[in-house]
Amino acid sequence: MVKRILVALGGNAIKKADEKGSSAEQFRNCYATCKLLAQIVKTMKKGDRLIITHGNGPQIGNLMIQQEEVKHLVPAQTMDVVGAMTQGQIGYMLQQTLMNCLREEGIDTPVCAVISQTLVDKEDPEFFHEAATKPVGNFLTEEEAVMLKKRNPEYVIRKVKPAGERIWRRTVPSPHPVANVEEAAIRRLVDAGFIVIASGGGGIPVIQDEHGRYKGVEAVVDKDLAGERLAEVCNANVFLILTDMEKVKLNFGKPNEQDVDKMTDTEAKKYLEEEHFILGSMEPKIKACIQFLESGGEKAIITSPDKTVEALEGKTGTLIYRN
Amino acid sequence: MVKRILVALGGNAIKKADEKGSSAEQFRNCYATCKLLAQIVKTMKKGDRLIITHGNGPQIGNLMIQQEEVKHLVPAQTMDVVGAMTQGQIGYMLQQTLMNCLREEGIDTPVCAVISQTLVDKEDPEFFHEAATKPVGNFLTEEEAVMLKKRNPEYVIRKVKPAGERIWRRTVPSPHPVANVEEAAIRRLVDAGFIVIASGGGGIPVIQDEHGRYKGVEAVVDKDLAGERLAEVCNANVFLILTDMEKVKLNFGKPNEQDVDKMTDTEAKKYLEEEHFILGSMEPKIKACIQFLESGGEKAIITSPDKTVEALEGKTGTLIYRN
Repeated sequence: MVKRILVALGGNAIKKADEKGSSAEQFRNCYATCKLLAQIVKTMKKGDRLIITHGNGPQIGNLMIQQEEVKHLVPAQTMDVVGAMTQGQIGYMLQQTLMNCLREEGIDTPVCAVISQTLVDKEDPEFFHEAATKPVGNFLTEEEAVMLKKRNPEYVIRKVKPAGERIWRRTVPSPHPVANVEEAAIRRLVDAGFIVIASGGGGIPVIQDEHGRYKGVEAVVDKDLAGERLAEVCNANVFLILTDMEKVKLNFGKPNEQDVDKMTDTEAKKYLEEEHFILGSMEPKIKACIQFLESGGEKAIITSPDKTVEALEGKTGTLIYRN
Repeated sequence: MVKRILVALGGNAIKKADEKGSSAEQFRNCYATCKLLAQIVKTMKKGDRLIITHGNGPQIGNLMIQQEEVKHLVPAQTMDVVGAMTQGQIGYMLQQTLMNCLREEGIDTPVCAVISQTLVDKEDPEFFHEAATKPVGNFLTEEEAVMLKKRNPEYVIRKVKPAGERIWRRTVPSPHPVANVEEAAIRRLVDAGFIVIASGGGGIPVIQDEHGRYKGVEAVVDKDLAGERLAEVCNANVFLILTDMEKVKLNFGKPNEQDVDKMTDTEAKKYLEEEHFILGSMEPKIKACIQFLESGGEKAIITSPDKTVEALEGKTGTLIYRN
């Protein structure tokens, strides 16, 4: 039975929360992650495939600070372009490091990172309400928030944290991914045996005009939902989401908090409705897993990077499967 | 007779010298360039292919200023990583714009940009002399140069311009390209009919250690020499270098300056020896053309972007061909 595994790497696989994000730190984290990915590749049989997607939150955050702070010297690029930069950055770091880790295992499977645009609907409801849901860039004081709004009247800036002085942040729409623009190339490479890195940071969000022409928009597509689209494109049957928790939790943060070993898509939907999962964090991951199973995927697994191999063997993590 | 054309776009195809380099400006320039590339695609027959590479001088310059200026807030990334960012940025802009221009012509050839590493020799002489040849980042006053050197003792900083106050600049090695690390993926996509954008900015320069593991280095590979390697990888028979001159000139800048309509590789070598061409500018382009012809290519053409179509028809530009 052929296995096609789509792995979605969270931000902490590349930059840890307590690090500043130097190149050396990020390469070190990539190495730890890619050593585990190489273990997966090692267990793969002829015809099996690995496809990788990744977040870009910390990287785009840092780049946006640089863009904003040096505006007087160098024009700040639009968000789609900055997102593209992070695909270059992270795609390169992962691609090189994974090649090296495979080589250390004596495996010569080629790796290729592809610049990826994600088509979104220009009528997506996220574009129409003031309270765009995705926070981007750094935390601001009220004074800084007022300044930023003055310089960029089109920005939505809102309170996002309940405590401290820096409680303001720019938020942007997080529209639903409709399609991977480069899906033909990605599928071609995957079929030919390449490990493909694609749809980084949820893909660069683009809309289509009435003539079918693409245009970047200031938005962020959720990387797990975009990863799910990518999984469909690549006919993946296993969808593995790596995050900062070994298992999904019900009643998260409450006294009756409880690990989930496995659940069906129907159960997952019920838990979603009961609001067990943090919006914008675990919630889109669960949604992506349900969508994956409904579109024909076999199993979705959510776990932490260090538990990758055991989770694939069914020994830990949270397994979500079809009824 | 099947035509495989490798086009190498100069910096001015994406950011003009008199522009600051906003996203809007760069997309506008990309549009003008891609309209011409779409004209080339329009004339192509079944089996013909177009492969694109591009410079990144102005973009990496801007990014390096941002990295340097905001060091107190966000770690500056190493040069290989910043180069990777520009591949994401420019790859995205070209890919999207070319897709749109093709659509305007009713052509549905798919386009794909690939993150590309260029292998260089860790024993390349460029790594061993103080006078690394490639200027990067902005022009500095003596005071700024001293400051930069203090903060980064490993930097080579030298006088690069004969006049004005800002005559200091950081220079880095410009090693010779040995191979495209992602050549298998690139070749696969080209063979399958994709227009591939690769080896941007000369590719991200990497060396290999004794175990074959890759590692990025602080260097810049000449984009035309790297483009020539890419042309070999893709079995291109036409190598088209777009720059800011319609034709190559002999005795450049002198009273007896003279356009070259065509020349053989032998003549080109003679002119190189006679030092007709500016080092680091026209000189590597001529070298790349000679290398292309010697490795089996049919013809190399150097012209300006607006003359692309006429030059391919043999009506203008400088043609370099084999004896």
